[in-house]
Amino acid sequence: MLKNKKKNASILIIGNEILSGRTQDTNTSTIAKWLNSIGVKVDEVRVIPDIENTIIETVNHLRKVNDYLFTTGGIGPTHDDITAESISKAFNLPYEVHKEAFQILEAYYKKDEFNEGRQKMIWMPRYANLILNPTSGAPGFNIENVFCLPGVPSILKSMLGGLKNKIIGGDPILSHTITLKTVESEIAKSLTNVQDDNMDVEIGSYPFFQAGKLGVSIVIRSEDQLKIDKCSSEILEFIKQKKIEVVDR
Amino acid sequence: MLKNKKKNASILIIGNEILSGRTQDTNTSTIAKWLNSIGVKVDEVRVIPDIENTIIETVNHLRKVNDYLFTTGGIGPTHDDITAESISKAFNLPYEVHKEAFQILEAYYKKDEFNEGRQKMIWMPRYANLILNPTSGAPGFNIENVFCLPGVPSILKSMLGGLKNKIIGGDPILSHTITLKTVESEIAKSLTNVQDDNMDVEIGSYPFFQAGKLGVSIVIRSEDQLKIDKCSSEILEFIKQKKIEVVDR
Repeated sequence: MLKNKKKNASILIIGNEILSGRTQDTNTSTIAKWLNSIGVKVDEVRVIPDIENTIIETVNHLRKVNDYLFTTGGIGPTHDDITAESISKAFNLPYEVHKEAFQILEAYYKKDEFNEGRQKMIWMPRYANLILNPTSGAPGFNIENVFCLPGVPSILKSMLGGLKNKIIGGDPILSHTITLKTVESEIAKSLTNVQDDNMDVEIGSYPFFQAGKLGVSIVIRSEDQLKIDKCSSEILEFIKQKKIEVVDR
Repeated sequence: MLKNKKKNASILIIGNEILSGRTQDTNTSTIAKWLNSIGVKVDEVRVIPDIENTIIETVNHLRKVNDYLFTTGGIGPTHDDITAESISKAFNLPYEVHKEAFQILEAYYKKDEFNEGRQKMIWMPRYANLILNPTSGAPGFNIENVFCLPGVPSILKSMLGGLKNKIIGGDPILSHTITLKTVESEIAKSLTNVQDDNMDVEIGSYPFFQAGKLGVSIVIRSEDQLKIDKCSSEILEFIKQKKIEVVDR
């Protein structure tokens, strides 16, 4: 991992549907890419079930070891949506009606549509700051360094933009990918040498076997473009010597 | 979560490429579905970077709190593949050449192809049991209740079948999904009543907004088909009263 990291985050995916394998999580990738772009590195992801004690314990651990914690899931209107109440308990804060959230949803829904289920979504920890939802009304919320977002990927995506001013990151984490028509074992030793010579750059090697194509992607990551360029040159140098075909760079 | 669980597992995804958002993890869903089919429930998933101490600490925690631990990633030939050595350290076992793995790869590759990179893949913790790889030769391994698989999804998939006899599960975890043309708030209260009346069945409610379609999937999970059927009837009863359209059941 990068040695010169400035800010880090963890992501907590809350939901039985991910653990059962029924639903493929895509929020991790969405949040991680967005965080990278504002200079925040994701150090850990956890997926846990909709169990109150598990949520409380995990939130209280992760919010202390990382600069930021992002949770997804469990803030809707049904019985299995227990994130907001669990977060209230994690922070020892009352779980109560959030006035601003009430006003937003009162304006969003017609009077007879603002039913009991929807009214559940205005209950939050006291002092919560809202995260606005341009897609479907019901806001997420933020307490200290914890940001609670919904599980539906399209809604989550639409809410990240509004968060930018709340997250203080470092320099964006840059990356460069070199894709080769080879197998990992052909380049393993030379790549180790490049990594050893460039310890503050993160070099990953990822083989792929898909759609009849076989190859390796080398990913170079750093906050410093010059360091990436130096690594990239060193890699392309040994690739050339080995007469390996470069598919993309 | 199901109250009558018998065996549980955790999944540990090892790899910077997932944390950076570059690669979308699909192995969680693959492993979880397969485990469900043999009666093992996934209680937690973690994604961690390629850092030795983090791997050692996380493996030693998860293998103690769950019946099984499945790791993915980090068992290839390159410098960032440090899972096997880290697992050796987690178990305080020597990291050494595995004779059977050597024989397999010696037979798999032509003599001049069995290079230094590939030879890295025969290094494992002492006493490791091999997990055979019908796709690309290099085996995974198992120590006690820890099963180490590769990160490439197609290879991982091909290796699960061979594991079946090593995993003792319970009754398969069954599920039934009812898909409705509605929004969660319309069914939230009635669904809570059904869950309250059927505490040992897991009922999840999952809204979707995709491809212009809006709806809710209700997923009922249990090891007991009769309990699923009872819940399903109760849900379809209130759905009928509310005149909500059933898309699929």
